[in-house]
Amino acid sequence: MTHALYHHTLADIARHLGVAFDGDADKPIRGLATLKEAKPDQVAFLTNRAYLKDLATTQAAAVLLHPEHGKNCPVPKLEMENPYLGYAKLSQLFDPLPARDKPGIHPTAVVADSVTIGKGVSIQAHAVVEEGVTLGDRVVIGAGSVIGADSMVGDETRLHANVTVCHGVVIGKRVILQSGCVIGGDGFGFAHDGAGWHKIAQLGGVVLGDDVEVGSCSSIDRGALGDTLIGDDVKIDSQVQIAHNVIIGAHSALAGCVGIAGSTQVGKHCMLGGGVGLSGHLTICDGVQVTGMSLVTNSIHKPGVYSSGTGAMANSQWRKNAVRFKQLDEIAKRLSRVEKSTRDT
Amino acid sequence: MTHALYHHTLADIARHLGVAFDGDADKPIRGLATLKEAKPDQVAFLTNRAYLKDLATTQAAAVLLHPEHGKNCPVPKLEMENPYLGYAKLSQLFDPLPARDKPGIHPTAVVADSVTIGKGVSIQAHAVVEEGVTLGDRVVIGAGSVIGADSMVGDETRLHANVTVCHGVVIGKRVILQSGCVIGGDGFGFAHDGAGWHKIAQLGGVVLGDDVEVGSCSSIDRGALGDTLIGDDVKIDSQVQIAHNVIIGAHSALAGCVGIAGSTQVGKHCMLGGGVGLSGHLTICDGVQVTGMSLVTNSIHKPGVYSSGTGAMANSQWRKNAVRFKQLDEIAKRLSRVEKSTRDT
Amino acid sequence: MTHALYHHTLADIARHLGVAFDGDADKPIRGLATLKEAKPDQVAFLTNRAYLKDLATTQAAAVLLHPEHGKNCPVPKLEMENPYLGYAKLSQLFDPLPARDKPGIHPTAVVADSVTIGKGVSIQAHAVVEEGVTLGDRVVIGAGSVIGADSMVGDETRLHANVTVCHGVVIGKRVILQSGCVIGGDGFGFAHDGAGWHKIAQLGGVVLGDDVEVGSCSSIDRGALGDTLIGDDVKIDSQVQIAHNVIIGAHSALAGCVGIAGSTQVGKHCMLGGGVGLSGHLTICDGVQVTGMSLVTNSIHKPGVYSSGTGAMANSQWRKNAVRFKQLDEIAKRLSRVEKSTRDT
Repeated sequence: MTHALYHHTLADIARHLGVAFDGDADKPIRGLATLKEAKPDQVAFLTNRAYLKDLATTQAAAVLLHPEHGKNCPVPKLEMENPYLGYAKLSQLFDPLPARDKPGIHPTAVVADSVTIGKGVSIQAHAVVEEGVTLGDRVVIGAGSVIGADSMVGDETRLHANVTVCHGVVIGKRVILQSGCVIGGDGFGFAHDGAGWHKIAQLGGVVLGDDVEVGSCSSIDRGALGDTLIGDDVKIDSQVQIAHNVIIGAHSALAGCVGIAGSTQVGKHCMLGGGVGLSGHLTICDGVQVTGMSLVTNSIHKPGVYSSGTGAMANSQWRKNAVRFKQLDEIAKRLSRVEKSTRDT
Repeated sequence: MTHALYHHTLADIARHLGVAFDGDADKPIRGLATLKEAKPDQVAFLTNRAYLKDLATTQAAAVLLHPEHGKNCPVPKLEMENPYLGYAKLSQLFDPLPARDKPGIHPTAVVADSVTIGKGVSIQAHAVVEEGVTLGDRVVIGAGSVIGADSMVGDETRLHANVTVCHGVVIGKRVILQSGCVIGGDGFGFAHDGAGWHKIAQLGGVVLGDDVEVGSCSSIDRGALGDTLIGDDVKIDSQVQIAHNVIIGAHSALAGCVGIAGSTQVGKHCMLGGGVGLSGHLTICDGVQVTGMSLVTNSIHKPGVYSSGTGAMANSQWRKNAVRFKQLDEIAKRLSRVEKSTRDT
Repeated sequence: MTHALYHHTLADIARHLGVAFDGDADKPIRGLATLKEAKPDQVAFLTNRAYLKDLATTQAAAVLLHPEHGKNCPVPKLEMENPYLGYAKLSQLFDPLPARDKPGIHPTAVVADSVTIGKGVSIQAHAVVEEGVTLGDRVVIGAGSVIGADSMVGDETRLHANVTVCHGVVIGKRVILQSGCVIGGDGFGFAHDGAGWHKIAQLGGVVLGDDVEVGSCSSIDRGALGDTLIGDDVKIDSQVQIAHNVIIGAHSALAGCVGIAGSTQVGKHCMLGGGVGLSGHLTICDGVQVTGMSLVTNSIHKPGVYSSGTGAMANSQWRKNAVRFKQLDEIAKRLSRVEKSTRDT
């Protein structure tokens, strides 16, 4: 379902983007769509050359595109150097969620007396806010979400439904926590006495910077002593696990199913592909990209792209190769012997 | 705990399976068990030749098996061409859950005035159903579950406890959503302006077909513009992540911890093993199987079994081979030189 | 945020650890910290030789360390053969959580009439406890958690907020369930009739032994017929998936993102690294360690360390090697031919 409950005029949209336009200022625009699927009351965008073929026949009310493609656009155009950024800005205009937020505390929400609540806060049905929590202005706490004692939530942060923020967690401004995520569960720390395990109480917290997003069902564990630290503008997808005392630098992005073990530090502007695993106690410098499902067991000190693993192939072919992997050291030694024997010949 | 609260006669069971039987029609049957563990009031089944050895000594009240094994069965038998299917059908008879559902809305549930509610619906304690939602007949909403605004839930669909369905999600009939799963969290979309990230509001929804099952703590993200589409009879295990605008064809099955990146299309009757990762924007045709923990980075256009990776071995052996992997290109080149030199000799 | 709301004297601490000490008995201690960061009212510890360099300059009130380092300690010392174990015990003293628990049932909690409740139990806001549940003494049920019908929870077990325990689950004593985890969701079982899937009702339960911990957003599925069994003192990190009828032996530890497929048995004192995958129906003996992100597809009958995969390298280097992996069988055959030809020469 593409939501088209609200509309804006073409002039509103151009103003929102800060660009000139050449069409009917009052034309109502009810949403966004691809070039191919856009209806006459929708704005389309061209952000990928692969879709240039759809430009000539688009039915869109207007197209957001780079100036180099402007001359081929059959409908009113909105030209930007970075049309993908324009699309992002425009998408927010059509999000039905913010218009639905009603400030106020639902009668079924349980909010401790000692909670400090900013202006325009919305606390929805069955949410629980425990003792000593501070909520900034315009915070939204979705239905069924729980915020543990002494945590702080910055202005304009949104917890979707069924989010858990444990005690003593600090969350910045404009943070978005998707449903099912858990911020501040215990880190995984145990001492062994030779027979079994003794729990190390996790006494640190979690600090999320401003503009962080955490995806559905992701977990960020609290620190053992110091805090787990997530920098400003870090974007974390769904099903991600971040262990205790991890530090993630500002503006880094972690795709789905990433797992980062304890005390590892990831730099700024890093990008981790889906399913990437980082061992514990590593240092990953700024500007590192790791491709999907790679395992990183050593620190990385040089920006660039890193990978491991091998891609899927037909099982019949794979079996033959995989069995050879177990002989690889032997193969290398045999090769050396052959090289020696041919040199000696 | 094998639940044995309810019982059926042997005649009930044979009728339920649509097969003849040769024993005491009124014998009470209190549950199912393996051949080895079955007590005299339980039905056992033989679906795997590995357990044929347990047939002669089984204490079961009756055994569900293929006709080829009927002659060796020491107790009353229920013969079917597909006894595993018979076991599935029989298991549902003994599930204690449906008998417990009490139609009605628990007094602590919060249901918006604008919700449309079918016949025989059960909404349990502390569930929240937001504005504009439509619930079909005999829908069950477990304790603590939240259904966001304008979503639709088809007849006989069950949400277990603490499920989150976000706004604008469409769910078919007879769907089962296990606890902790999240349907319709935001997809992971951001535009970069050279300094940081701008969120792309996720304006699409999620559509789940009929007879879909989604496991515990799994997440299916909403589309960026169009919808994320899960076909009829798709079975999704626990801890699975499905990104925005993915399409899964009917009757496919995804085992635990699978991750599928954005806009990838998986065909019908596919099977993805545990921990499999699919990169984004791929097309996987019908009838593809991918073995556990494989990484698929290219589209697959031919049905069959695909694999990647290598299985575990003793660490001492593995170290030697893994280090050679980093020399593999060099090994191949050295081999070519040796081949050339021996040919030249 | 390191929590330092409560304090103990140095004498209290020495008594708690059962060790002698040589400083001011009444000195108030407000928390724990590393040697480097400890303030004069904190106890530090030396558990890793890498930090020996910080001992001489520590500002700590006292240091917990092995007797061999005692002579170099500039402040009062607490000597133990296993100082890491001492740190674990001490950390529990400073955990702010237990002091906050207030016995009693929050007025918004929904507790069925048939529930049996021990002494000193705390059931927090919006928790739901269904029919026939038994709660032992001093059990804590966090806000928003749900316990399904007929489940049993042992003495001193803690469910953090938003935990789901499904019906018919048995939980031991002193178990800790982190937020968002799901115990007893349906296992993934379906029979195929040639056209589509038929659900196998999951009639077994889950049994968690004493002293088990389960991390945030982890899931342990109920058995198909018999139970899924987690032994005493098993520690399970976040984002872990344990499928139906898995058995985990006592004292084993599973790091984040581990996935274990159905009916696999893991021995006692095993350690599975982050992201490890075990195929179904395997037997892993006692004392096995598997390193991070390894895939185990065969049973392991000998204690030791096992591994698979290859670590990340620069993408440019990786590409060349990964493509050779697909030629590995051919490389091995070519090597054999070359060997033969050089022998023949």
